[in-house]
Amino acid sequence: MTAVDLRAAREALSANAPLVHCLTNTVVQTITANALLAAGAAPAMVDAPQEAGDFAAVASAVLVNVGTVHERTAEAMRLAARSAGAAGTPWVLDPVAVGGLAYRTDLAAELAGLRPTVVRGNASEVMALAGAGAGGRGVDSTAGADDAAGAAADLAARTGGVVAVSGEVDLVTDGRRVVRVHGGHVLLTRTTGAGCALGALVAAYLAVTDDPLTGTVAAHAHVALAAERAAALASGPGTFAAAWLDALDAVDGAALAGAQVRETG
Amino acid sequence: MTAVDLRAAREALSANAPLVHCLTNTVVQTITANALLAAGAAPAMVDAPQEAGDFAAVASAVLVNVGTVHERTAEAMRLAARSAGAAGTPWVLDPVAVGGLAYRTDLAAELAGLRPTVVRGNASEVMALAGAGAGGRGVDSTAGADDAAGAAADLAARTGGVVAVSGEVDLVTDGRRVVRVHGGHVLLTRTTGAGCALGALVAAYLAVTDDPLTGTVAAHAHVALAAERAAALASGPGTFAAAWLDALDAVDGAALAGAQVRETG
Amino acid sequence: MTAVDLRAAREALSANAPLVHCLTNTVVQTITANALLAAGAAPAMVDAPQEAGDFAAVASAVLVNVGTVHERTAEAMRLAARSAGAAGTPWVLDPVAVGGLAYRTDLAAELAGLRPTVVRGNASEVMALAGAGAGGRGVDSTAGADDAAGAAADLAARTGGVVAVSGEVDLVTDGRRVVRVHGGHVLLTRTTGAGCALGALVAAYLAVTDDPLTGTVAAHAHVALAAERAAALASGPGTFAAAWLDALDAVDGAALAGAQVRETG
Repeated sequence: MTAVDLRAAREALSANAPLVHCLTNTVVQTITANALLAAGAAPAMVDAPQEAGDFAAVASAVLVNVGTVHERTAEAMRLAARSAGAAGTPWVLDPVAVGGLAYRTDLAAELAGLRPTVVRGNASEVMALAGAGAGGRGVDSTAGADDAAGAAADLAARTGGVVAVSGEVDLVTDGRRVVRVHGGHVLLTRTTGAGCALGALVAAYLAVTDDPLTGTVAAHAHVALAAERAAALASGPGTFAAAWLDALDAVDGAALAGAQVRETG
Repeated sequence: MTAVDLRAAREALSANAPLVHCLTNTVVQTITANALLAAGAAPAMVDAPQEAGDFAAVASAVLVNVGTVHERTAEAMRLAARSAGAAGTPWVLDPVAVGGLAYRTDLAAELAGLRPTVVRGNASEVMALAGAGAGGRGVDSTAGADDAAGAAADLAARTGGVVAVSGEVDLVTDGRRVVRVHGGHVLLTRTTGAGCALGALVAAYLAVTDDPLTGTVAAHAHVALAAERAAALASGPGTFAAAWLDALDAVDGAALAGAQVRETG
Repeated sequence: MTAVDLRAAREALSANAPLVHCLTNTVVQTITANALLAAGAAPAMVDAPQEAGDFAAVASAVLVNVGTVHERTAEAMRLAARSAGAAGTPWVLDPVAVGGLAYRTDLAAELAGLRPTVVRGNASEVMALAGAGAGGRGVDSTAGADDAAGAAADLAARTGGVVAVSGEVDLVTDGRRVVRVHGGHVLLTRTTGAGCALGALVAAYLAVTDDPLTGTVAAHAHVALAAERAAALASGPGTFAAAWLDALDAVDGAALAGAQVRETG
C-alpha cells in the first residue's frame, strides 16, 4: 500500500459519502455517528429485526458491533450480516469483549462464520475469536497487537477477509500481507467509543475502496492522525473527544498520505 | 407572527421549565436531553410500555421520534401518543427515515392518525408521510423544504396540526399560514441529533405557547440562531456541538426577536 | 473521615483502575463511561440477562440505575444485584425518578431489599424509596438534601449500607455518621447524566476503599471539585461537560484532600 492509495481512499470517502449501516452498542452510537459524519460518511443506526435485513441490502457498508447485544439486536445482526453477504456489501464485525462472556462469544463465532469482510478488535478479542472455534483459549486483556499476529492470520484464513488488531501499533492483515499503522495517542483509550467508531470508519472506507486491506489501513491511519492532532489541542479526555471529531473532518487526502504505515508481511 | 411573539415564547420557556417527555432514538437521547436542559426545559426519557402512558399524561409536552424504534418502544409510543391526546397535552411526531423502511413507515402513518400537534421532519420524510396513506410515493432525500410545501399542507390538513419541514430554509405551516425560518448553519447537519433535538425543542415551546405555529417557529428560530453563534466559535463538528449547547442557553428573548422569520402564506 | 482518607481513596482509584459494571439508562451511558475513564476506572456496560449475572461476579463493583428500565433490563438488574451480593462485590442503586412511576418504584423497592452497598439519589428519590415499603408518601422534587436526612437514615438502617443524597450540599450517611459535601456547581444540573455518572464513580470508589462511607464521600467530593474547576473554564453547559471530564482526570489525591467535607452526625 502506498501513500497514493491512502490519499485516493480519503478522497473517495469525501466524494462518495457512503451510507454506513451500524448495528452497534448503545454506549457508542452517538460518537460513532459523529465520527462518520466528521469523516464525510452518512451514518444510519437501524437495529430492529423488522428493518435490519432490508436496510443492509441498500447500505454502502455495514458494521456489526456486539458491545451491548441482547436477543433482539442479535437477531437483527444475523439478518443484516446475511443480507450484506447476499448483496455483496462489505461488512465489519467488531467482537467487543468477546472471550469472557459466553453469550456474545458464541454469537461472534456464528457471525464470523458468515465471513465478514473485516474483523476489527483488540488483541484479546481477536485471540478469543480466533480460538473460539477450537474450544476457546486464554485471553490476556493487556496483550499488544503483535501478540495476536498469529491469531489474526488464522482468523483471516478462516473468514477469507481482513483482520485488524488495535493497539499501540495497529496490525492489519489479510493472511498474506501484514501492515502496521503507527502513531495515534493514548487519549483514544480514555474516550469511550473511539475503537468502536474506528470499526464504523473501516466500514465507510470499505465502501469506497476496491481492496479491503487498503480500506482498513486507511481507516486506522485516519483515526491515528486525527488523534495526534487532537491530543495537541486537548486539555484532557473531555476536550480530546471534541477535538478528535474536528480532526477527523480536517484530515484530508494529502495528510493521510503522510501516515506512518509500514508493510512488512 | 411577530418579534414580540418570539420574545414572549422564549421568555415563557425559561420561566416555566416545561417537562418534556421524550420517546426518541437511542443515538440522540443524550444531545436531546442536553439541548432541552440548555434551553431551560426539563427532559425525561421514559419509553417503557409500563410507564409511557402514565408519564405522558403528567408531562408538559411529548416527543415521539421513530429513529430506532422496535416492538417495545413502538408500543410505548402508541400509549404515550394516545395518553397525550386524551389529556390535551401537545405532542410532536418526528418520522425519522420514514419512506424507505416499511415497518417504521406504517408505524408513523398510524401515529400521524392520532393527530400530533406538530409533525417535524426533513422534506423526504414529510413527503413520505403525507403520501403514505395513499400508497406511498417516491422520496428524494436531497429535496429542499419548499419541495415539500404541498405535502406539508396536505399533512397539516389531515392531522389538524402544524407541519415543519427542516432544510436550508425551514418551512412551517398549519395549512393556512406558511412561515419560513432562515439562517442556521450547515454544521447542524454534521452533528448527529441536531434535527432530533429540534423536535424536542418544538415540544418544549408547544408547552408554553398558546399557538402551535408560533411555538414551532420559535423552536426553529432558536436552533438556527444558536447554530450561527456556535459556528462562529467552532473549529469543526466536534467543537460545534458543545458550542451549540452553550448558545441554546445564551439565546434569550431579545435575541430570538431578531430571528430571520418571514410569513408568506 | 479525614483529608488523608480522601487522598488515599483517590490514589487507590488511580492505582487499581477498578472494573465497574454498569447497568444504567441509555441516556447517560456515554457520559458515565467517559467519567469512569477520566477518573481512572474501567467501565463495562453489560445489561443483557444472558451476561449480567456472570459479569457482576467478576467486576470490581456494580452500578444499577433504573433510569430507562424495562422488562429485559430489569431482569438483568436483578441478576446482577444478586450476583454481586453473593460474591461480596460492592454495588450501588440509583433510583432515578422513583416515586411517581409505579413500575420503577416497585423495582427499586425490590432491589433495595437486596441490600445495596450504597443508594444514591436526589432528595425526592431517597424519600420515595424510603417510604415505598410503607406504602409511599409524598415526594417534593424541589426538596434539598437535608429534607431527606431522616429518610436517608431510615433507608440506611434497612439496607445496612450507605445512603447518599445529592443536592446543593450533598448528604452521606451510614445511619450513624453523617457527612456533608459542599462545593460543586449548578452547571452539573444542566448536563444530563452528571448525577448518574456520580453513581458510577461511587461504585468505582467502593471497589478501592474498605469503608463504604469513605468511598461514597470521596466520589461526591471528586465530582464537586471537578465541577468547580470546569465551571471556571466553561462558556455554558456544552463546554462545561467536556471541561468536567478533563477535571475528573486532573483532580488528584492532593486536590481531593482539600475538598469541603464536614462530618456532623
